[in-house]
Amino acid sequence: MRILFHLPLSPYCRKVRLVLAEKKLPFELRAERVWERREEYLALNPAATVPALVEENGLTIPDSAVICEYLDEAYPDFNLIGLTHAQRVETRRLVAWFDGKFDAEVTRNLNGQKYIRRIAGRGHPDASALRTGYTELRTHLQYIGWLAETRKWLAGSMMSLADLTAAAHLSVLDFQGDVDWNVSAAAREWYARIKSRPSFRPLLNDRVPGITPPAHYADLDF
Amino acid sequence: MRILFHLPLSPYCRKVRLVLAEKKLPFELRAERVWERREEYLALNPAATVPALVEENGLTIPDSAVICEYLDEAYPDFNLIGLTHAQRVETRRLVAWFDGKFDAEVTRNLNGQKYIRRIAGRGHPDASALRTGYTELRTHLQYIGWLAETRKWLAGSMMSLADLTAAAHLSVLDFQGDVDWNVSAAAREWYARIKSRPSFRPLLNDRVPGITPPAHYADLDF
Repeated sequence: MRILFHLPLSPYCRKVRLVLAEKKLPFELRAERVWERREEYLALNPAATVPALVEENGLTIPDSAVICEYLDEAYPDFNLIGLTHAQRVETRRLVAWFDGKFDAEVTRNLNGQKYIRRIAGRGHPDASALRTGYTELRTHLQYIGWLAETRKWLAGSMMSLADLTAAAHLSVLDFQGDVDWNVSAAAREWYARIKSRPSFRPLLNDRVPGITPPAHYADLDF
Repeated sequence: MRILFHLPLSPYCRKVRLVLAEKKLPFELRAERVWERREEYLALNPAATVPALVEENGLTIPDSAVICEYLDEAYPDFNLIGLTHAQRVETRRLVAWFDGKFDAEVTRNLNGQKYIRRIAGRGHPDASALRTGYTELRTHLQYIGWLAETRKWLAGSMMSLADLTAAAHLSVLDFQGDVDWNVSAAAREWYARIKSRPSFRPLLNDRVPGITPPAHYADLDF
């Protein structure tokens, strides 16, 4: 069986879980406490990050971006990047936007401070990072709303890796009650659409010791 | 003519210049002082980063990772990612290693502190960041040396995007005299091979006000 090493509240791991599920590829999840630097895991992925995917034939693929490119090449039936050069550029531009800019401005300031610092035993969240995170999140929600209003899905007429990437980041923040969905009705409507997909169900069932998600987290008609 | 918006000491811009040159695609370079947030440039690339590539047909591609994937798909003649799934995974794993881990541990601590802070007017380098950068660089040079000794090129038997990515980062550090090539003879030999390629020549001719590169910087037999 294909194995995915992951952490439940990592947006990068959630993205890969969504891609695998959308492509209907079965896999077994294994939680990897990367900060413990387990030797067998370092041999598998010297960068000591999650996610890492191990295929049944032994091929080991670390890094969510590398995994997603690999999965779209190896299992092309349900294409998630796009068919034309322009579509592929737009999907990857938005993936880089959410994994780069959104991550630096929002995810690290909120999830990084509230969750990652706690599980890694690095103390309390920094108040100014949280303030920055909440402010930047409003701007990003407006951008997502604008994209969702002018297109069917974030990168165009097809549901793509851009939607799954953005939704993976937002799902981690939403789990911790950090998303004010009143900022953009269009972003909220887009997220409700993504969240209703069968691929999302396992993410909504994740539970993490010490965090109670808000009532709307797993509610498809929130 | 194809246009590349860039900054001379950005490893990400240098990587794209190398890819374009390896694929023999002509382009015009335009320096973009991204911190000035020029409106016309924001319309082109809302993330306000360099590089961004504008094709003759108007297709605009921001982000070095997106540009390199695009170029290898649109101009596949001289393949830079690999032919098999395993090769493509290994090339992209190393690209993610250098653009992620090496960048965070080395490039940002050295180039980020010494050059980027200065041009953006953010003051003097932080001594502890510099110490971390030099220490981590030694470990990375040993890793590069180990890869170069066990394979012909970093990702295997083909020169690939992994070599160009690593060399782009190192060339920026070498320009500022930050690389102690005595750490690894194999890394030094590999870098001399990459540096001798015609695609590297324009990088070696770059000059930046206020920085005099060391004598060996443009010397092919250093």
